[in-house]
Amino acid sequence: MPTDLRAGIPAHDLERFRAHLLTLADEARRIIRSACDQGFEVKHKPDGSYVTSTDVQVEERLRALIGKRLPDHGILGEELPAHAPGAEFQWILDPVDGTEDFVQRIPTFGTIVGLHFRGEPVVGVIDMPMLDARVHAAFGLGAFHNRERLRLADLGADVPPAQVRLMLSARANFVRYRDRDGPAFDALTRTYPNHRIYRTCYAHACAATGQADATVDYGNHIWDLAATRLLVEEAGGAYRTLQDFHTPTGRVFSAVFGRPALVAKLASLLGESPEAKAP
Amino acid sequence: MPTDLRAGIPAHDLERFRAHLLTLADEARRIIRSACDQGFEVKHKPDGSYVTSTDVQVEERLRALIGKRLPDHGILGEELPAHAPGAEFQWILDPVDGTEDFVQRIPTFGTIVGLHFRGEPVVGVIDMPMLDARVHAAFGLGAFHNRERLRLADLGADVPPAQVRLMLSARANFVRYRDRDGPAFDALTRTYPNHRIYRTCYAHACAATGQADATVDYGNHIWDLAATRLLVEEAGGAYRTLQDFHTPTGRVFSAVFGRPALVAKLASLLGESPEAKAP
Repeated sequence: MPTDLRAGIPAHDLERFRAHLLTLADEARRIIRSACDQGFEVKHKPDGSYVTSTDVQVEERLRALIGKRLPDHGILGEELPAHAPGAEFQWILDPVDGTEDFVQRIPTFGTIVGLHFRGEPVVGVIDMPMLDARVHAAFGLGAFHNRERLRLADLGADVPPAQVRLMLSARANFVRYRDRDGPAFDALTRTYPNHRIYRTCYAHACAATGQADATVDYGNHIWDLAATRLLVEEAGGAYRTLQDFHTPTGRVFSAVFGRPALVAKLASLLGESPEAKAP
Repeated sequence: MPTDLRAGIPAHDLERFRAHLLTLADEARRIIRSACDQGFEVKHKPDGSYVTSTDVQVEERLRALIGKRLPDHGILGEELPAHAPGAEFQWILDPVDGTEDFVQRIPTFGTIVGLHFRGEPVVGVIDMPMLDARVHAAFGLGAFHNRERLRLADLGADVPPAQVRLMLSARANFVRYRDRDGPAFDALTRTYPNHRIYRTCYAHACAATGQADATVDYGNHIWDLAATRLLVEEAGGAYRTLQDFHTPTGRVFSAVFGRPALVAKLASLLGESPEAKAP
């Protein structure tokens, strides 16, 4: 087995990066809560999705904080052009994941931040300001739900599919880039009828906390998944990339994550891409 | 058009019933929040669903409060035997709707209470303690989201199906009593791919607030829908019963509700039962 690149990062750097990550999440939460109270502007992007003044405001603020403290690190965000795309360390940002829900005050939206080292996740956070909930992790240092350390149990072999608590993206996410993935949604919803669909990072956080047994999410950009693999793996869960392909609007990933035995079953049902590499 | 039976209820009675309804919701919220902090017992019912000590505790407390103030009113609850089933006024209670989510601390669960007069809803509330959110209504007196009066706009005729914000129950709810309703779930998720599935009363509340354009919920007992029709109608929306049939565990309803033009389209897609009567 090849050595994990991340094992070479000094412990004090990991702790420093984690502290910085939590500062970023605090700052995003402060801006978002203030926007919820005071209102914000909503615009439609060319692809029909929403963007708000808050998405841009949060991303600008996080970029400024990263640039001040760690100026040689790259930054890749949903709303603004990449900074230092060749750097070994890359901060990946989704300032408001689930903007449509944010606009509607449906409280499962959140901020996603991950720091990757040569493509491998080092620290990550999903923060949901309206739920007062945060899941964060650092490589080798564990995953936490607010202050509680996460330790996922595996799914018992005797749990019937009808009792599995599965979270999914909507059918829209399955067919956004290619129609042929619609049947994957249909097969999942038939085989695992006890499903919930949130369309936001909340479903990713729940796979790390065990509030979902597993989550299947199709048609994501890298910032949607910037923290997920690390959160789930540090909690004791499994993460598998199902698809990794290029579209005119960028590279797209589909993934399954959560309790290991269930992730293996779902990857088998959905057909794991042999060449796929986790973001 | 026949006279609405409810028009004969004196205004001071409506106000008195609404005040009592809100007292019941306050009390349910207090018990549930305390249980979230201090823990509770979880058991499986014979049908595989959960029941907690909190479900029973809330229902007992609400029954005691109703019995003290309005002893001649009937009470029908999810967890305990009916009281005075022949009375004209019936309080219908679901102490914790979404018990599985309550157990998992997924915050969209809530308490549902409705008062019906000869089968017609008079006052109703959906209260979600973890979201600090309440939607309530009284016949002729409007619907409210916390302190804000609700006034639903209709859906514009030019909104494409892919942009409609639809909330659904899971496929489990569609096939719980008869397999032949599975295709209705499949048709809905294909035609309206921007859907969310919460499996709780939260999806009902969102149809009254406009956070969903409409909600389709299959396979409900009467307590699941005890408040929904009144909340949505008093907010300016439409409510239609799609199915109303008997099973060994009681009468079961399926319904669609939300912005009127969309409710008409969905009822047409799903096939409205001509003889169905709203609970």
